[in-house]
Amino acid sequence: MASSAVTPADYHKIMRVAYDQAIKSLSEGGIPIGAALVHLPTGKIMAKGHNNRVQMSSNIRHGEMDCLENLGRVSEGVLRECAMFTTLSPCIMCSATCTLYKIPLVVLAENRNFLGGEDFLKGKGVQVVNLDDEEITKMMGDWIKSEAGQKVWNEDIGEVSIPTQ
Amino acid sequence: MASSAVTPADYHKIMRVAYDQAIKSLSEGGIPIGAALVHLPTGKIMAKGHNNRVQMSSNIRHGEMDCLENLGRVSEGVLRECAMFTTLSPCIMCSATCTLYKIPLVVLAENRNFLGGEDFLKGKGVQVVNLDDEEITKMMGDWIKSEAGQKVWNEDIGEVSIPTQ
Repeated sequence: MASSAVTPADYHKIMRVAYDQAIKSLSEGGIPIGAALVHLPTGKIMAKGHNNRVQMSSNIRHGEMDCLENLGRVSEGVLRECAMFTTLSPCIMCSATCTLYKIPLVVLAENRNFLGGEDFLKGKGVQVVNLDDEEITKMMGDWIKSEAGQKVWNEDIGEVSIPTQ
Repeated sequence: MASSAVTPADYHKIMRVAYDQAIKSLSEGGIPIGAALVHLPTGKIMAKGHNNRVQMSSNIRHGEMDCLENLGRVSEGVLRECAMFTTLSPCIMCSATCTLYKIPLVVLAENRNFLGGEDFLKGKGVQVVNLDDEEITKMMGDWIKSEAGQKVWNEDIGEVSIPTQ
């Protein structure tokens, strides 16, 4: 991994940027998952994003993907020096995208509400750090159980809803 | 897999829809990779797309992802009945996205110019068919060797270019 101005002591602060994106999405009626991309050698926040399934009628704009799209096209070396921060364990689409661009570090706020492609990432040599953040876990868990969450969450993770009686 | 109105005899015809998208992208100065999504029970072309890295300054709009984005948001069961046709072996991002949505069949025109996540797809139970199409292989190979291809191809697949002498 490139030499880093970002240390584990900074992870919670950077995660707040991703969390703010999640709350922004929630306020828009969207799925509350946010992401931030940070340039490790400088600590600069390169891009932010949030799930846009509802807002943009999108199948691919998960938080991490939205963040990469907001970044705009970059040359092939840039993402090798960046870490992806995300409020939820990244699904297999987002995990694989991180490996395509050889992002070396993925920091997630929690995986209690959804366990994504963490083993896949580790198998590809990506460092994965779980902050196990209580506040973000509660926010996401409450949303999944809410009326809005019941309508859209399974769709977002590719699962078929089982109607409750 | 769902019962299908689409048989292997139809694959080359459907691939022309994806190829036309590749040629459209080429005519726009973009990367010539195209995709089409077909609904297996009815044979309906649900969406088309092409690589938009250059045109949209995008890191995530590979042909298959662009196709899924052009489809617009769909409920979680729809993609389980669709096949993804793509002019080139799908990279790990696009392959993983197909598995997220449990797309049961991926048909590719060729993998001589790039070998993507075919083993990953097969490991997840996705049927993978390679048409080994000579015309599309030549088109893509010629483009990779072209001046435009030398500038952007490695960026698209996450590889660092090695400057030629």
